[in-house]
Formats: sequence, C-alpha cells, structure tokens
Amino acid sequence: MRILVIGASGAVGSAVVTELAERHEVVRAGREHGEYRVDITRDDSVEAMFKAVGPLDAIVLTAGSVFFGPLATMRPADFSIGLQNKLLGQVRVALLGQHVLRDGGSLTLTTGIVAQEPARQLANGTAVNASLEGFVLAAAIELPRGVRINAVSPSILTESKAAFGPVFPGLESVPAARVALAYARSVEGSQTGRIYRVWQ
Amino acid sequence: MRILVIGASGAVGSAVVTELAERHEVVRAGREHGEYRVDITRDDSVEAMFKAVGPLDAIVLTAGSVFFGPLATMRPADFSIGLQNKLLGQVRVALLGQHVLRDGGSLTLTTGIVAQEPARQLANGTAVNASLEGFVLAAAIELPRGVRINAVSPSILTESKAAFGPVFPGLESVPAARVALAYARSVEGSQTGRIYRVWQ
Repeated sequence: MRILVIGASGAVGSAVVTELAERHEVVRAGREHGEYRVDITRDDSVEAMFKAVGPLDAIVLTAGSVFFGPLATMRPADFSIGLQNKLLGQVRVALLGQHVLRDGGSLTLTTGIVAQEPARQLANGTAVNASLEGFVLAAAIELPRGVRINAVSPSILTESKAAFGPVFPGLESVPAARVALAYARSVEGSQTGRIYRVWQ
Repeated sequence: MRILVIGASGAVGSAVVTELAERHEVVRAGREHGEYRVDITRDDSVEAMFKAVGPLDAIVLTAGSVFFGPLATMRPADFSIGLQNKLLGQVRVALLGQHVLRDGGSLTLTTGIVAQEPARQLANGTAVNASLEGFVLAAAIELPRGVRINAVSPSILTESKAAFGPVFPGLESVPAARVALAYARSVEGSQTGRIYRVWQ
C-alpha cells in the first residue's frame, strides 16, 4: 500500500510510520517536517499536498491541536481554536482526501481518551474529539467505492506521561508502539466506522 | 425561577416555554422573535442580551443550525457552518452565560438523536451534536457554585415528521410536549453532566 501519514513527526505519528513502513510505502507530511509540508487549517495547502503526493491507499492523520485552559475564563475564541485546528483540520483532510483514495482505501483519524473521560481544562479537547468520533460514524455510511474511515483513540502516551500525567490523575498510559498497532488495524483491516480505543 | 429560553419560537423551544411557564418566569429570546433578539454566532450580541436580561436561574438553548448535504460533495466550508452556528453558538452562550447564572443555576443545551444514530447527508449534524454532548460532560466537572449543565437529545419530533421523516427511515417520533419534559427535568432537577435522550 501507499500510505500518507500527516503529523508523521509527532510522538504517535512517528510510531505509526515505524509500524507501517515495515510492510508499506509510507509518505510523511507535516507542518514543519516530512517529505510534504501541509497546513491542515487551509484548503489550498491540503489540496496542493494531495496533488503533489498522487494516488493513495490510506491516509492517516495524527495532527491537530486543541485549547487547554479553565472553563471559568474560557472565551468563545479560545474554544474555536480546537474547532479550527484539530476538528476542522482533520475533517478537511478527510473531505478532500476521500477523492484521492483508491477503491477500498482508508482514512484513519485520531481522537483521544478525553472524548469520553473529561479532565479539568480540557473541555475543548473533549468536544473536539467527541465530534471527530461522530464524524467517523456518519462518514462511514456515506463513503463510496469501499473507502473506509476509522479513528484511533489513545490514552495518554507512556512517552508523554512526565509532561501530561498530572492532567489525568490515575490514568494508565500506553506505549506509542502499542497505539501504532491500532492504526495498522484500521489501515490493513477491513472495518469501517470504528473507534479503536487503546485504553479499554 | 427566572428562565431564559433561546430559540423560544421553534418547535422544541415553544413547547419548553409552555411547560416551564406554568411554574416559572420565562424570558424568551431568539434571532427574530421573543422579548430579546440575539445572534448566538456573535459574542457582542450574546453579551448585550445577558446584560439586558439580568440575573437568571436557568438558560435553555434550543437554537442552532447545521449543514445538510451529501458527504461526496461536502466542502470544509460547508462543514464549518454547523461548527460556527449550532456548536460554537451554544458553547458561546454557555461560556458567557455561566457568569450570569445565580448559584445553583443551570444550562440546558440541545443535541439530537443523530449524535449516535447517523443518517445520510447529516455528517455535520452528527459531529456537531456529538461535540455538544462532549462539552456538557466536560463542563459539568468544572462549573462552580453548584451551576449545572445538561443536554436534551430529542428524536425526530412528531410535529416535524412530515418534513423530516424521510431522512430517518423507521425512526419513532416523539411529541414536542414529551421532549419538553426532559428540559424541565434538567432545569428543575439536580443532576449535571447528563444527556437526556428522549428516544431510549
């Protein structure tokens, strides 16, 4: 397969590249790293990337940021950050990418445990990730030509526990290499409309 | 209680007003109808409304629109319609409204069955409603002073079945008056972080 990984230099993305490159041709993209540079918040940037990359069997998205901060002082503009970046960014790649995928190709988005397990200061992350999971469920029933769509929802990464652990007291972490297996399951498997939760 | 209903002239909103006005002072707001006019897509409009309305015990939101159309031709700008209108609109009212609620007050948002039960051409609606449900779960753990937040998720209304029924084959409809009871349960009850699904 020919697989595009957007966000390939991140903690999750690089583990996904390592896992999939054993068996497939992996093309890496990112805002500042990778063979192709892309800003997922802009249509023209995403369209230029797809034109340059050419036909694909799978698109994996491990990019996108959300707003972190207390609800008491959160402004609508703060909440909009995650909507414009991670939510609409991943949906933009899916909407524009559905047309460049070969028959039977797949889209794999990234959500996170916070979609169902909220934590203080992460209301934007919960809302964004829950929305992406809804999008996956809905898009799966409309995609033609055997094109599939799933999402992977990791818990906190073992590699990031020192930095983010205090935000999620008591959460079991998972190694990035284990999270990467769920992406392989989505890309190489045959299911659609699934959320692979790497924390249950 | 003093209760503000935004979207009070709609099919759900007017049923909520009828139910709550039996026992409470209900203030009606909307884009084109009601004692107060408000555009939930603008901070200044929402802030002006809250300043004019004064202290409240409950805010009920039955307003907001989403994009309807096939995934195959959907553009990021189409998907953004529901993000800017219903999603960020209801979140805006919640974020700005948390500060005008009296101790123990409540926010009640509106989602819909499509959050969990997708239908063709409604990927935007699924994503928007799922996101609002995530926001409710997350906001409930941060709101101070006993302020609560819930959402009501109606099935298709019996009153709208002629217009929207074909979009949802086989769905049981519910009368608006029955849906209104779930809003009363949220406003007059004591729970928080709940999604009242009027279809289970």
